[in-house]
Formats: sequence, structure tokens, C-alpha cells
Amino acid sequence: MARTTGNGGEDERVAGGGLLHRRAFLATGALSMGALGTIARGGTPPASMAAPGGPLSGYGARASASDTIQRRLPARIDFPGTGSSRTPLDRLEGTITPNGLHFERHHNGIPDIDPLAHDVLVHGLVQRPLVFRYEDLLRYPMESRILFLECSGNSGALNAVKPAQVDAGRLNGLLSCAEWTGVRLSTLLDEAGLLPEARWVQAEGADASGHVRSIPLDLCLDDALIALFQNGEPIRPEQGFPMRLFLPGIEGNASVKWLRRLKLMAKPAYSREETSKYSDLLRDGRAELFSLRMGVKSVILKPSLGLDLRGPGYQEISGLAWTGRGRIRSVEVSADGGKSWAEAALTEPVLSKALTRFRIPWQWDGGPATLMSRATDETGATQPLRADWLAKYAPGQGYHNNSIQSWHVDAAGRVSHIYA
Amino acid sequence: MARTTGNGGEDERVAGGGLLHRRAFLATGALSMGALGTIARGGTPPASMAAPGGPLSGYGARASASDTIQRRLPARIDFPGTGSSRTPLDRLEGTITPNGLHFERHHNGIPDIDPLAHDVLVHGLVQRPLVFRYEDLLRYPMESRILFLECSGNSGALNAVKPAQVDAGRLNGLLSCAEWTGVRLSTLLDEAGLLPEARWVQAEGADASGHVRSIPLDLCLDDALIALFQNGEPIRPEQGFPMRLFLPGIEGNASVKWLRRLKLMAKPAYSREETSKYSDLLRDGRAELFSLRMGVKSVILKPSLGLDLRGPGYQEISGLAWTGRGRIRSVEVSADGGKSWAEAALTEPVLSKALTRFRIPWQWDGGPATLMSRATDETGATQPLRADWLAKYAPGQGYHNNSIQSWHVDAAGRVSHIYA
Repeated sequence: MARTTGNGGEDERVAGGGLLHRRAFLATGALSMGALGTIARGGTPPASMAAPGGPLSGYGARASASDTIQRRLPARIDFPGTGSSRTPLDRLEGTITPNGLHFERHHNGIPDIDPLAHDVLVHGLVQRPLVFRYEDLLRYPMESRILFLECSGNSGALNAVKPAQVDAGRLNGLLSCAEWTGVRLSTLLDEAGLLPEARWVQAEGADASGHVRSIPLDLCLDDALIALFQNGEPIRPEQGFPMRLFLPGIEGNASVKWLRRLKLMAKPAYSREETSKYSDLLRDGRAELFSLRMGVKSVILKPSLGLDLRGPGYQEISGLAWTGRGRIRSVEVSADGGKSWAEAALTEPVLSKALTRFRIPWQWDGGPATLMSRATDETGATQPLRADWLAKYAPGQGYHNNSIQSWHVDAAGRVSHIYA
Repeated sequence: MARTTGNGGEDERVAGGGLLHRRAFLATGALSMGALGTIARGGTPPASMAAPGGPLSGYGARASASDTIQRRLPARIDFPGTGSSRTPLDRLEGTITPNGLHFERHHNGIPDIDPLAHDVLVHGLVQRPLVFRYEDLLRYPMESRILFLECSGNSGALNAVKPAQVDAGRLNGLLSCAEWTGVRLSTLLDEAGLLPEARWVQAEGADASGHVRSIPLDLCLDDALIALFQNGEPIRPEQGFPMRLFLPGIEGNASVKWLRRLKLMAKPAYSREETSKYSDLLRDGRAELFSLRMGVKSVILKPSLGLDLRGPGYQEISGLAWTGRGRIRSVEVSADGGKSWAEAALTEPVLSKALTRFRIPWQWDGGPATLMSRATDETGATQPLRADWLAKYAPGQGYHNNSIQSWHVDAAGRVSHIYA
């Protein structure tokens, strides 16, 4: 149990509710913060030391104790391959999502594709239509980047009139981060040769939904990849095996999976997934189409709903921040519902369009507290209050919700979701 | 197939054997380098678009086409859990190793540990012996870093009189890289309180080998972690679940897995694994003990044995570089057996004590070629020639081989391992 001793006191407090300077723990040592080690007693060696352990293997598996860490599936599944599963962010640490826990969002299930029979066609407003086989692309110059991917519908539950009492994974887990490796899309477009009137690229997947999105050409000529590898290994079927489009910082559905076709066009196609879906209805009745870039956002994961505090004393508050516009500049944390804020430490390297882990020490006095985080990116954009975000959109519009979220801690240490 | 057209020519060549400037591909576009796209013909939609695909899942699996990507197991296994399996580096991309493919090295198998019954004892020359339960450590302030881990016996096959004709994974795959998250070891040592005479820490694992290593205290007070998470999820059983020591830049066996005990001592214990093993016998009969820090090193993975060239023309040469002393400063590549060298591009971010991916374009003329890479780190240390490395050590001494490696490409594009 936590002991509160020494001087984890007023001099290190930088905001209300017990928030300490982000370097306080390192500067003062553990004892001043409430140490958790217990005095050692005698013990016998564990049974694991008495007999040889398990064998080597070709591809490892998790500990059985980790089996409870699963993607969050929908409560009700009408069509098994359609919908989404969410990364259990509250059960993970760091910033990289292991491949088995990367979130899923499919429009008609996961196709089973033979990579040696798969190719991608580049056609439309090009000088020469070309086909690139999977095997050919493996010979191309590659690029590797650590990048987040977020569904534009992530955190849509914040629209609900009452705060949903679900964990951070269910609230915000249409979000993952991996090291993606692939070929620059601009390389393939150069090879096909763009005609002057080309302004948009329609990307089509080889799945049964025939998922298509129109993407402005400038995004495709910027840092877009044809991703072939995810955290080192070939991308998973759920992520578009054998290849997907990957648009850094852009809403996930535009990074078309199982990519089979890229059509250069003068105008967008206005397909179903960019008109009735994935467009943002405003309060005045107009809609934002192609609102592709993800806003600046952050979530506190420790503590969060389901990870109750075990007693007063030292706690680490930590979470994730990200922005589609580049790097995170700062994350501020409040323990008093937004009355005062303190700057969290950002874990280096702070990468463009990747998740950034933030941490700040907190001396919890055992009273009720409301925890919030607010990220600002390198363009100066910052997260809006929930009320301000809601004021912009038509009722029920759930895409691109990047508003400030709040966890309430009661005197028993129980964490609940609130609108503060 | 590769077409060689345009001006992928003399002006971009920066070293013998067809090495091009590291930015040549980006500067000149694909066509000048030998484009691989083929002219499009009509086609019917694939079968995958005709029927709904597979379902959502709690924890994803790889494509069956990726099943051939396995850790390299020993040809002969006398004791199933003792020995090593190697990361198939030649089949991976980027720098992150997926958790299922992280290399293994066990001294008596993988113990099966209940995390809720596991703790680590800090004792010996301390003011107060303490026990830290797994659950307690989860409440501590965490730190996340992308770090490589390499076994000191990695690349030991380079000692053989004739070059082993095995792939880069079998040669160099006692090497992996992941994002590790855990508690600073210095935090726990501070809490126990060091006595002035403490100079070494003996770390013991809970496996059946009772694996112990003595580690200089300065390493433990520097950037050492008690690692609890690996690429976001709890570390795998093969990697020490529920916790391991992690010493950045240090030979793998010192990062004791299944950590159960840390004893502060005035002198090293001179245990078996730091005297008869994991010490480096020199040519003059003396031995280097506690030669813990890994040297600067690099390997070319594309092309490499098993990944033959499919024809003359543009190729990307790429591989990995790393050093236990900090950051990689540069990687030079030769295509003419070391007569001339060109600087490769390093993929950002170049992180301290992590793998760094290097890439350089190469216009292969179809003749025999000898490919080599040579890394230099931020301290100015560079890889030795194989002959110079061998001259230092007693015959058969296989630890810490960081000498320059060579692949030979014959006129048919076949890649073999040579000593150049």
C-alpha cells in the first residue's frame, strides 16, 4: 500500500488537486512520493525453478494471464465481419499497438487474398495505366514510419446525452499506432505519369463492400504510402493484407485496405462512404465533406474507468495524445475539473502523426477529483470543450469528436466517465 | 521485370559497382531507375469482392501466406527449452520486431509464472530489503523506449573457417527491437536505499537455470528498466513475463528474464554465466570479463542469402545498424567488396540504442558484386574487418562479433555468404 511520507508536498505542486511538477518523481526519489515496496521476509524459491520450462517456438504467444486483453467487440453483431473492434487502450502501455490488437473497421468482412495473385491498378487520368503486382512492389524503395491510425467515428459516444460508463478502450479504441513500411504512393503515380487535369485519386479495396474513397491528389503526392508491413511483419488480413493505402494523419477509412485500384480523376466521385457516411453534418444544415484530417486529441488512460485507484498517495497519470497535423506540442492535465492545469511530460521521441505518451505525477489526497487532459499541436490547435464541439455540429453527428474528456474519481478511488 | 531507361546513369553514381546517391530515387523519379509496373489490361473483380469476408476477432492472427515467417529454430534440439530461436530479419521490414518473432535465448526453458504471485526482492547492501509485487510495480511511474536487444553470441557463425551458407536471420537473428515500457530500476534501488559499499547488482531469474548475472551498479543507476510491457502489451513468456530486467545497449543475457531478485554487492559473484560463459577469451590467453556493452554493427538484409535478385536494374539495398553506445552516425555501403563506399540514408528517427534502418539505391549491371555495410556510431567507433576482429580473440571465441559482413551476388542474381 502507498505510504505518504517526506515532502511530496506543496513546493512540488504545480496545479490544484495534487498535480506535481512533471519531473517531481525523478527529482525527489520514490520515498517522498509514497513508496510501494514492502519489507522483505524469508521465502522459498518458486516452483518455476524446480523443473525445466517450456520450449522454443517459431511464433510466440502471450501469457495466458494476458488473455483478458482483447479487442473490444460490439455488444451485438448482426453481420460478423461488418463493424468494428477496438484497441483496449486502457490495458496497454507505451505507444506501439501490437498487431493482434490493432483496431478493426470493416464494411463487409475481411477478404482472404492470395498475395501472389494480387495487384493494384493505376488508371484514369494517367499517361499510361499500370498494374503493380505485390511481388513487384516488394522490390521498390521502402519507407518506414511510426504512425497512428484513427477512425473518424472514434469517441462518437461522447455525443450521448449521458456519459457512457464504458472503459477508455470502448470510448476511444478506434485508434492504434504501428511502424508502417511501404512504398511511397507518389512513386507509383510518377511511374504512371499524371495528366494535367488529375486532381483526385479514387482508391478501391478488394473487399465485398467495394469500399471506395476519393482523396485529394495533394495528399497522395505528400506522404501517402502503399503499406506492406506493420511492426516489421507483413500487414495483417484485418489491416489490408497484402497491401493498404496509408494516409498519415487522415481518417482511417480513407486508408483503403486490400487496395486494388487507384483511379486518377478530375473531381471526387461522391461515393456513398463520402456523402451519406464520413461527412459531418453541421448545425446550420450544411455538411463538411472530405473533412479528412484528424484533429488534435488526448485521452487519460491511467487512471480510467475500470482501473480504480487502490488508495490515496502517489499515482502516475498517463495517457496518449496525437494530431493529424504533425507533432504534439504540449499536453496539460487538470485534477480539479479544468480550474487549473499542469503540463505533462511527453515521452521522446515526439513523432509527427504518431501517438505520444504523456505522464504526470499526482499526489491524490483521497477526495473526489475530476481528471482532464488537453493537447495542443505544433500548429497551435488545441482540443475544444465538449460543449463548444457540440455547438458546431448537428445533433447526432459523431465524426471527428476531439473534445476534452473527463474522468471522475470518487473518495473510494472508483473512476467514472463524466461530462465536466 | 525491371527496365533500365532514362538517366539512372553516371551522374548519380557515388561509388563503384553501381551504388547511387542515397536520395537518387526520390530526386529522379521511378522511370529513370527502372520501373516495374506493367501495362494494364482488362480484368474482372476478384472473388473476394463477391461474398462477405471474415469476422471481427478479439486478438488477430497473421495471413496464412505469412506463416512461413517463423523464428529460426536450431537444427537439433536436445533440450526443448534450452538454446535459442532467431528473428527472421531477412523476412521483416522496418525496425520493430513483432512480439511473436522476438528472438529467444533460454538457459532451461520458459517458466510459467502467475503474475499475481510474483514479486522481486531487493536485498544485500541496502538500508531496507524490500519486496515489490507485480501489481505494485504497475502503479509506479513508467518509462517507454524503443530499444534493441542482442545476444552476445549473435553472428558467432562468422568464426567458422568457411562462410556458413545460411540466411541473415540464422546468422544475425539473435537481435530484435521493441518498444519497452517499465519502471526505472534506480527508482527501486532508491527506495531500498543503497549502502555506500554497494558496487554491483546480482540479478536472478525465476527460471529453472537460476540464471544470475552481476551487473555494475553504474549501469543499474543509468537507464536500466524493470520492463513490464513490450510493444504495448504485457511482455511475453519468452521475454520474461511478468517482468524482466532491461539494460539498454547491453548483451541480452544480462537483461535477466522472469526477474525475482536483485542483490546489492561490493564485488561481482563470478557466477558460471560470467566466467565460463559470456566472457571473451583473448589471443594472449587472458579473458575479458563483463564485456557487457554491444559494439557498433550493421547487416544488409535486402538482398541477402535466400533473397536472390530477379534481374539487372534498379534494386534497393537495405539493412539494419545499431550500437550499444548510443546513436548510429552513418552507414556506408560498398558494392565492390570494400574498394569504394557510399553513404546510405538512415530512416528517422535515429534513436539511441535502437535499430536504425538504412537504405541506398543500387543500379545492378548484372555482373558479380560483393555487398558490404559498415556502421559508425556517435562515439566514432566503426565496425572492424573480420580479419582484425579475429586477430584479437582466441580461436573459437564467438562473443561480440561485430565485424563487417559480405554478401556475394553472382551473374544469375544468386546471393551467397562470403568472407571478403
